[in-house]
Formats: sequence, C-alpha cells, structure tokens
Amino acid sequence: MPRYKLVIEYDGAPFVGWQMQDNGASVQGVLTAAIAAFCGEAVAVQGAGRTDAGVHAHGQVAHVDLGKPWDTDTVRDAVNAYLRPHPVAVLSAQIATAEFDARFSAVQRHYLYRIVNRRPDLTLDRERAWRVARPLDAQAMHQAAQHLVGRHDFTTFRAAECQANSPVKTLQRLDVDRRGEEIHVHASARSFLHTQVRSMVGSLALVGEGKWSADDLARARDARDRAACGPVAPPDGLYLERVDY
Amino acid sequence: MPRYKLVIEYDGAPFVGWQMQDNGASVQGVLTAAIAAFCGEAVAVQGAGRTDAGVHAHGQVAHVDLGKPWDTDTVRDAVNAYLRPHPVAVLSAQIATAEFDARFSAVQRHYLYRIVNRRPDLTLDRERAWRVARPLDAQAMHQAAQHLVGRHDFTTFRAAECQANSPVKTLQRLDVDRRGEEIHVHASARSFLHTQVRSMVGSLALVGEGKWSADDLARARDARDRAACGPVAPPDGLYLERVDY
Repeated sequence: MPRYKLVIEYDGAPFVGWQMQDNGASVQGVLTAAIAAFCGEAVAVQGAGRTDAGVHAHGQVAHVDLGKPWDTDTVRDAVNAYLRPHPVAVLSAQIATAEFDARFSAVQRHYLYRIVNRRPDLTLDRERAWRVARPLDAQAMHQAAQHLVGRHDFTTFRAAECQANSPVKTLQRLDVDRRGEEIHVHASARSFLHTQVRSMVGSLALVGEGKWSADDLARARDARDRAACGPVAPPDGLYLERVDY
Repeated sequence: MPRYKLVIEYDGAPFVGWQMQDNGASVQGVLTAAIAAFCGEAVAVQGAGRTDAGVHAHGQVAHVDLGKPWDTDTVRDAVNAYLRPHPVAVLSAQIATAEFDARFSAVQRHYLYRIVNRRPDLTLDRERAWRVARPLDAQAMHQAAQHLVGRHDFTTFRAAECQANSPVKTLQRLDVDRRGEEIHVHASARSFLHTQVRSMVGSLALVGEGKWSADDLARARDARDRAACGPVAPPDGLYLERVDY
C-alpha cells in the first residue's frame, strides 16, 4: 500500500471546511470522492490542517494510501480530472514513506491573512480577502504582533470549540506588512489552536485602528480569557500557504 | 452640470462586457442604474475602454455629468452602496473639466494579461487568469513580442467586428515576464483594436510553446490577415489596469 503525499490548493468559499461534515460539501469529502472515482478505492484522506469554512489553501498537504504504485503524475492528473468542477486542485503528488503523516509529521505550518484596507467593497477579491474600511497602521500592528511571538498560553485567541489538549503554543512568526492598499499578516508555528490566526488578526486590526495599544494586546494575551479577544476576523482572508516536514 | 471622473474596478466574469447590450447585465448598465438610484438622474456613463465579456478592470475610467456638485467622496460611497451586490466598485470620484472625455482624452491605456502556466486547473484564480498546461518560454515570448512594439498595421490581431477606422496603431509596450508559475503580459498603447491584446497573447503563447519562432510572429503581423493570427486568448486573464490622461 504505497502512501502518497498530496499538495492541494483550494478556494474555501463553497465548502463547509476541510473536514467532512453532515451539513455540506467539504474539501476532504470531494477529494475522497475523486480518489474513489479514479482508483475504485474507499480511502481515508488525512490533511495537515483542518481549515474552517471559507478558509483557502495554496499548499494544504494530505496523505493517502492507495492499493497500487501509480505513477505520481497520473495520480495528480486523474484526481484533478475527477475533482471537476470543484475549485480544488492537486498541485503535486509524491510517494511518501509509511511513517509520513500529513498532520503529525508537520514541523511548521505557514498561514497568510490578506486584508484589503479601503472603503470600496471588494470585486475581484470578494471572498478572497477581508475588506477593512477604517485606515489601519500596519507598522503599529507589526510591533504589537511581536508580543504574541514565542511560547504563550493562547487561551484568549482560541475558539470555545477548540479540541487541542493544551492552549500553550509556540508562535514562530507573526509579521504584518503593507503593500499598497493590502496588508498581509504572516503567521508560522508548528501548530495552531482553532481560529487562532483569525483571532489574532481581529485583535491586531484593533491595534491598527488605534483602539488598542501594543500593551492592550499583551494584556489580552495575559488575560487567558476568550472574552478579552478582539472580534474574530472573517475566514475569507485566510490561506494555508505551506506545511513543512 | 459638473462632470465627474470615476475610476472603476470590476470582476468581468458575470457581465456581457462594459457596454450596455440587450443580452445581459453590463458594467455600464449596473453603473448607470446605481447612479440613477443615488441621484434620481438618467445619466450617460462614458468609459475609456469597452472591455469584452469576462474581461476585468482594476482601473477603468468613466465620466458622467451630474445635476449638482456633490462631494466626491459622497458620489463614490453612495454609488458603491447602490452597486451592491454587483462586483463593481468606484475606487475614486473627482471633479473633471467639461472638456474631459474618458474615452477621447485618454493618452495611454495599460492592460495586464495573466497566464498561469501549470497542469492543474485553477481554483482561486478561476475566471481570473488563463491556465496554459504546456510549458511556456516567457523569455522567447518577450523577445518575439518586441516585433509588435511600434507603429504597425494590426489587421492580423483585430476582430472581424472591430469598428476602428484604421488598423494602424502604435503599441508602446509589450513586455512578458515570468513570476513563478505566472506569466504576465503588459501591453500599453494610446488605443487598441477590438480583441487586439487577446489576439497578441494567443499568438505569443504559440511562441512560448515553441510552435512559432519570433520570425513567424513578424510574418503573421506582416500578413495583415486575420487568418494568420494564433488562437485568441480567453477573456479571463485580461485586466484594464490604468488609463492615463
């Protein structure tokens, strides 16, 4: 049973999220169906990150065991053919070792959050970014963000339904930079709590607006209380960019 | 009757094009309706470029005469409110002179064509770019493109239904550059013939594939014959970026 590592891109807008659920189409579900259509096998597709409804991926990673050693380009092209018309694509397929686990072998996950900071509504970037009308100070956001980098109890930035054993995580990177009317937030860590990136981005937006100081953000962190979090940023702007192994 | 200059962004996918037509919603049509809803006036909205169905704009320009001197931010915000839910947004509104004409005062139009050069189908960039599966040599495309820069008879690259008086145009710039899996074609001229950019891009793709040499492109130009043109590239990848006055 060779194991395959798949790198996957998707538009999260039409899905209930990565994980199979009863209430609608999931990325994991359409992938499972496409693989079954290709090779006739009922497989379990394990992803690196369980992205929420509306969250996108440029580089989600999954592993799957197939009954025979298909050529990897054949796997990629055939699964992509059966994925149509869903906005999900296998960018690459490669043979992995039996020990490789897309979720548990990951050593670093990289997310991008896109804010478009302007008054007019989004057109081409609708469902692809968060439009914030109030002017944001990206430099102040970046400076405040450094209070969240490192090993912390992230209870404040954790959804109530989060199933992680511990709220303590080590955030490797939280950079904010402006490119014209766009503000990009780059977040990297071995693993994240549920809605952690969107919770941090929503709180950083308060800093960008001048409603919170950098110290307010540090106090929110130290409160270890969900009620101390800013409004959670919408899923539209969030992208799982890459997973390192 | 103050004249306003509007800079407009839109997703061209759901429209029959810029210009009002009988067969569906147009960008000009939804703009005209939004302005009427805002100020109660039946206005004529004149655009700089009559983009085709499916063609996008980051910086279309239009002019319109309104009955009274509204604050320009009010015009922008109110028209945007009435444009919902159409993927069209007024990025800026400003007072123009009575002589300003969005179409005839333009001295340079800048288009971008986005190719995504890879085998997998597009997901996030669906209807936003042209996916070309065969590997393209962007450098060869750029070199060949220089045969089209300057003053030429562009009959080969002109749609049968083009209404321009003359097929002779001066192309200021036709640059091709690769950024990872994306290839960008930048085209600038005072004015273009109907489907000229898409016709040039389709022919350049033949060069990129190695089916045409740079000399073949020059011969196609010199043929002054529509039949000598490569396949016209789809509208999905074309963006009216900016208009200079």
